[in-house]
Amino acid sequence: MGWEKAFSILSILADTAAADNNEVETLSKTLTLPIEAATRLSIDLFVSLGMSEADAAASAWPLIDAESMGIATHGLIRVPAYAKRLRIGGIDAKGRIAVERCAPSLALVDGGNATGTAVAARALDTALEMAAETGIAYVGCRHSNHCGALMPYGLKAAEAGHVFIGGTNASTTMPPWGGAEARIGNNPICIAAPVAEGAHFLLDMAMSVAARGKIRAALAAGAPIPADWAVDDGGRPTTDPAAALAGFLSPMGGHKGAGMSQAIDILCGVLSGAQFLSGISSWADDPERPSNVGHFFVLLDPGRLVGKDAFAEAMTRFRDIIVTTPPADPARPVMLPGQAEQERRRQAIADGLTVPADLMAEIEALAGRKS
Amino acid sequence: MGWEKAFSILSILADTAAADNNEVETLSKTLTLPIEAATRLSIDLFVSLGMSEADAAASAWPLIDAESMGIATHGLIRVPAYAKRLRIGGIDAKGRIAVERCAPSLALVDGGNATGTAVAARALDTALEMAAETGIAYVGCRHSNHCGALMPYGLKAAEAGHVFIGGTNASTTMPPWGGAEARIGNNPICIAAPVAEGAHFLLDMAMSVAARGKIRAALAAGAPIPADWAVDDGGRPTTDPAAALAGFLSPMGGHKGAGMSQAIDILCGVLSGAQFLSGISSWADDPERPSNVGHFFVLLDPGRLVGKDAFAEAMTRFRDIIVTTPPADPARPVMLPGQAEQERRRQAIADGLTVPADLMAEIEALAGRKS
Repeated sequence: MGWEKAFSILSILADTAAADNNEVETLSKTLTLPIEAATRLSIDLFVSLGMSEADAAASAWPLIDAESMGIATHGLIRVPAYAKRLRIGGIDAKGRIAVERCAPSLALVDGGNATGTAVAARALDTALEMAAETGIAYVGCRHSNHCGALMPYGLKAAEAGHVFIGGTNASTTMPPWGGAEARIGNNPICIAAPVAEGAHFLLDMAMSVAARGKIRAALAAGAPIPADWAVDDGGRPTTDPAAALAGFLSPMGGHKGAGMSQAIDILCGVLSGAQFLSGISSWADDPERPSNVGHFFVLLDPGRLVGKDAFAEAMTRFRDIIVTTPPADPARPVMLPGQAEQERRRQAIADGLTVPADLMAEIEALAGRKS
Repeated sequence: MGWEKAFSILSILADTAAADNNEVETLSKTLTLPIEAATRLSIDLFVSLGMSEADAAASAWPLIDAESMGIATHGLIRVPAYAKRLRIGGIDAKGRIAVERCAPSLALVDGGNATGTAVAARALDTALEMAAETGIAYVGCRHSNHCGALMPYGLKAAEAGHVFIGGTNASTTMPPWGGAEARIGNNPICIAAPVAEGAHFLLDMAMSVAARGKIRAALAAGAPIPADWAVDDGGRPTTDPAAALAGFLSPMGGHKGAGMSQAIDILCGVLSGAQFLSGISSWADDPERPSNVGHFFVLLDPGRLVGKDAFAEAMTRFRDIIVTTPPADPARPVMLPGQAEQERRRQAIADGLTVPADLMAEIEALAGRKS
């Protein structure tokens, strides 16, 4: 579909959605648009801020892909957020991404303070090239920024037939175990593996019980939060979202999640020469300052190990063992990690993205499409 | 110290400990013996069951090393357990460990149903050789068995200057998330990184909230267990250790730990050609049947990435940021993962291992040293 046509569809869909939703409150108004239209709009916005077409495309896809998976917290909502930071120079629209091949299976990427999504996308491409040659790759990134959700990268690696381990660090939201000051991030890890048919294995998990975004949403909705999500600034469990936001996120699995956050930080931040722990400046508190976030990707080619066919057969058996587990609730069958996200993605590819109308209006306004 | 001397020390220490403890109940009787004596005794027992001296030494060290770190559940208590399984052929004392180099940075180890500790030790040595050459290594193991705690392997890799990721799968103790039948193990992962002085970063965590061993200990002591450790066979939280042992372990972090267990299983079991999920037979239920457990190790050489000196400087800073975090309880300073275990290990190297007297008597009896 051409972009012009996509945009006219976008406008029609927006009008239709607005008409359909006349009876409901403004906040819940949504519109449905083709993925290509959301992508084109995001690229145009980033290009309008000084980015090359290629960098803008690389910057946009992980956000659009996450949106298609239903990961709205790391989807289109980040497009205006990235744009605002690009505008004030906290992220460099002309940041030069430099790849250093350290060894046949090792590389470091200096992101030059470009968008984290563009840096991570380049790092993944580098890792895919190296793993195709040697069967294994580690790529570490420094001088990067927020890189969106990890699941899109994991999915791309799985589609290329590789087992994938990826991680990123983040600004501090939690204390190390037993501590009373935030010095670790809720650094996510993603592990993916190809499955021959249906959904790939695709696990993406942050090291906090819940994301700050969910607490912000509870605050906006005037709702309490579960007691295990966060503690207040005195370290006491709280169900008050405001007290939680003034306090700390709770690590998933207690000391285990707090330890794993540090391990991921070493793989992302220390090995790559990026910042780590409290050295990462907060986007929210200090948006003009480069974050120097780190990421890492490890790829493994099953074809060089157990063999491509044996791996495919075993992963099919693996998936079958999981999804045929008798469910605790008969109405809720057991799923493979990432299966729901991939089903939503297939649906979005077929039917388009359904997103808040005011978010699309904001992106359009920033891109200069409508006033 | 010669072994003869070590053994006479062992006997003296045993007698002394027995004399010192005359007033206390039998269960709490302990003795203190040099690490070398416990090692020699374990090797002699394994050799008496048909193992070569080299395989026996490789089989023993991860158990003794874990004991020295205070990880008693994976320490000397496993020596008689391994011996019983070697005796009935569930583990093969003459199992041939074969290393296949698949690529400069990739290898698979077929454990030939030898002890998991010997298989994993050989795999780690292979990974260390490859990482010294290429800066990165993945080694997967199949046809292996219980390999003890992962921390000793992580520590050895950190001492050699490498960043280490290791994992092993295990027989099923938990349902996948939303399931009502045990189909996943509490597969641990260990991530380690060298620190120039003091303790290395050494995280070793299983994917359950608590180990079955701790529930067995509560049952033996007639004590209840915390409500988040396990569920009964109907999936209901329980504080009754007997009901917990008849039910399932709870995954740490809920769905996150359940997902991570599967990810580790893919890296250990599927990539190596070992068994996985419910394909792994239970040692407890089926001790004569080979388990075909899988393990994996990934090594990364910081010297080929950010550089040896820059990495050392950054890890020192990393450690300092963690351990200087204001503690929630002023009496309990924040520690680096694995710091307590390494402090115990240093003390055990200096002062010897303090272990239950009846455990040492059992090992001695099995080794034919005393009746």
